[in-house]
Amino acid sequence: MQTKEMPIRILPSPLPTKGYAAYSATSGLSPFNFERRAPGPRDVQIEIQYCGVCHSDLHFVRNEWGMSIYPLVPGHEIVGKVVETGEQVTKFRKGDIVGVGCFVNSCRTCDNCKEGLEQYCLNGAVATYNSYERDGKTITYGGYSNQIVVDHDFVLQVSNKLPLEKVAPLLCAGITTYSPLRKWGVTEGHKLGVVGLGGLGHMVVKFGVSFGAETTVFSRAQSKEADAKKLGAHHFINTSNEKDVKEAAGYFDFIVDTVSAKHDYNQYLEMLKTDGTLICVGAPPEVEPIGIFNLIMKRRRIAGSLVGGLPETQEMLDYCAEHGITSDIELIDINYINQAYERMLKSDVKYRFVIDMKTL
Amino acid sequence: MQTKEMPIRILPSPLPTKGYAAYSATSGLSPFNFERRAPGPRDVQIEIQYCGVCHSDLHFVRNEWGMSIYPLVPGHEIVGKVVETGEQVTKFRKGDIVGVGCFVNSCRTCDNCKEGLEQYCLNGAVATYNSYERDGKTITYGGYSNQIVVDHDFVLQVSNKLPLEKVAPLLCAGITTYSPLRKWGVTEGHKLGVVGLGGLGHMVVKFGVSFGAETTVFSRAQSKEADAKKLGAHHFINTSNEKDVKEAAGYFDFIVDTVSAKHDYNQYLEMLKTDGTLICVGAPPEVEPIGIFNLIMKRRRIAGSLVGGLPETQEMLDYCAEHGITSDIELIDINYINQAYERMLKSDVKYRFVIDMKTL
Repeated sequence: MQTKEMPIRILPSPLPTKGYAAYSATSGLSPFNFERRAPGPRDVQIEIQYCGVCHSDLHFVRNEWGMSIYPLVPGHEIVGKVVETGEQVTKFRKGDIVGVGCFVNSCRTCDNCKEGLEQYCLNGAVATYNSYERDGKTITYGGYSNQIVVDHDFVLQVSNKLPLEKVAPLLCAGITTYSPLRKWGVTEGHKLGVVGLGGLGHMVVKFGVSFGAETTVFSRAQSKEADAKKLGAHHFINTSNEKDVKEAAGYFDFIVDTVSAKHDYNQYLEMLKTDGTLICVGAPPEVEPIGIFNLIMKRRRIAGSLVGGLPETQEMLDYCAEHGITSDIELIDINYINQAYERMLKSDVKYRFVIDMKTL
Repeated sequence: MQTKEMPIRILPSPLPTKGYAAYSATSGLSPFNFERRAPGPRDVQIEIQYCGVCHSDLHFVRNEWGMSIYPLVPGHEIVGKVVETGEQVTKFRKGDIVGVGCFVNSCRTCDNCKEGLEQYCLNGAVATYNSYERDGKTITYGGYSNQIVVDHDFVLQVSNKLPLEKVAPLLCAGITTYSPLRKWGVTEGHKLGVVGLGGLGHMVVKFGVSFGAETTVFSRAQSKEADAKKLGAHHFINTSNEKDVKEAAGYFDFIVDTVSAKHDYNQYLEMLKTDGTLICVGAPPEVEPIGIFNLIMKRRRIAGSLVGGLPETQEMLDYCAEHGITSDIELIDINYINQAYERMLKSDVKYRFVIDMKTL
């Protein structure tokens, strides 16, 4: 009787998915088969083509932040092709090239979400991996996998003008650096310094130069000078050279600090001019000694910034397509990932590993 | 022959002046007779009526910053009456009530001076005491004295609408707190926190309330609640109470930290909302451990601020005259100054000692 009154609803089958996962803090990454939800009415199913390798992937894989959920599939610099869309999805069609960054959902109702600052969602954004979906129980798995299903509001349009493997890192390294430069209005006439010439730092150079700022790279390794200049930097300061550091006192409007290891912030504060801002996008694990006096004497600031919201990420991708900006990468097969992590720890990459997902 | 060609110029005699000075880091303050220059063409000679007692006076008297020049006459919260003006002075006349703050000169040519930010003069502003005049050799003596001679550009107009003894502290405590609140645009709708309810802190409360911000005082001493409310604060948080501190996480747009002793900044950073700013006007002697993570996760900032420039100091004095804002003070005889310092060290003053210079 009941079957007559209630239409039979055939639940769509979950999607068998292949990926690479860590099984513990010491396991490294190895193949992992799992399921993703079948696309719902608002979902986009994406065949992943490339996924960038962010330093935070390594932190999570090795549980260095003490909050890893295993098995853990990392990856939040995702570029791929739409293979299916839910019935309410109008912005994307099969065959579109799209991106997914650090977040796949948020509450959408808090003040920050309403302003397009989903990364600061007051109810906790859903991270692309090692997070729980809004249901509070489904673990999210990231982009080291052959496909992903994401709510259309968290999917970004990617121009096919640019080589897609070089676009992937824009989804995290790109927006993490673009966002604070825009927020603080870095532009022509400004003097911009960059601490750390890695995945993030090399994007600060590219954006800084593109926005018209006089851009200087700091490094203790003289060998970085040629690299910096090749990326377009105007100047280089070897911070092992005390005299050069002293001479740069009070020179910079902005310094973007991308280093997440323990280091001396006060050296950079002193290089800021009046009203200068030290923008931190690298997060050292422990508190750092800061000279409040250094802030007071020239009305300087230290500011943090965390990736970027969806509208700004789209803006960044469009800007990059228009201005031909991409990440410098080394494309790898997925079975090279554990070696890649070892090389990342030695900063032996220019400047981002990207996994070619065809090799999965 | 030469005397015929060169007109005899009679140099005006220097002005015998009475004050109180420290003679060493351990001497305390006692009477001191010295000379000030006779007013030149651009100078204003001021009979000092009141001088506020700033905590930095104590630091200098005791050489706690290692840069004291003895004998040292402190005092940079000066209100008095014009008794003489140089021939080029048009802005002031004999009998005018005027003020002098933390600076009596600057280079006037650097970018900061040209913007009216003389406190950040790139060639070094001349402090009202314990500094060298632009000649590089004449030591400046401050307001614990019966008169002072100051270039007219560094003299401020003071309304006689307000009780002058209560106006004196505005010249340092007032502008030090007014300036960052204006710089950061603290206004109606903002939630403002205040750390430290002393000479600076009580002015943050008064300005914050006057600018329309919902103002909260933090203190570990419950006894401060009544004081805070009396000053107009809307709320009070006892920071010994962990639960209340936790509940305030992410609540404030701005927190002004006036404490110059070592203390926990991270507790206050966590109480800031997204894009919130911790404004430091108190300078602890050593570096302070700061959680960069706390800055990044909500795009928070720490900013310093140092007193204010001449145009803004005038604006502040005018604002105070219009809105009836003054400092809460305890008027003292100058021979009480050493005891007053001891009481200051115990925060036993509501909220600023001011010396009645008639008692000199």
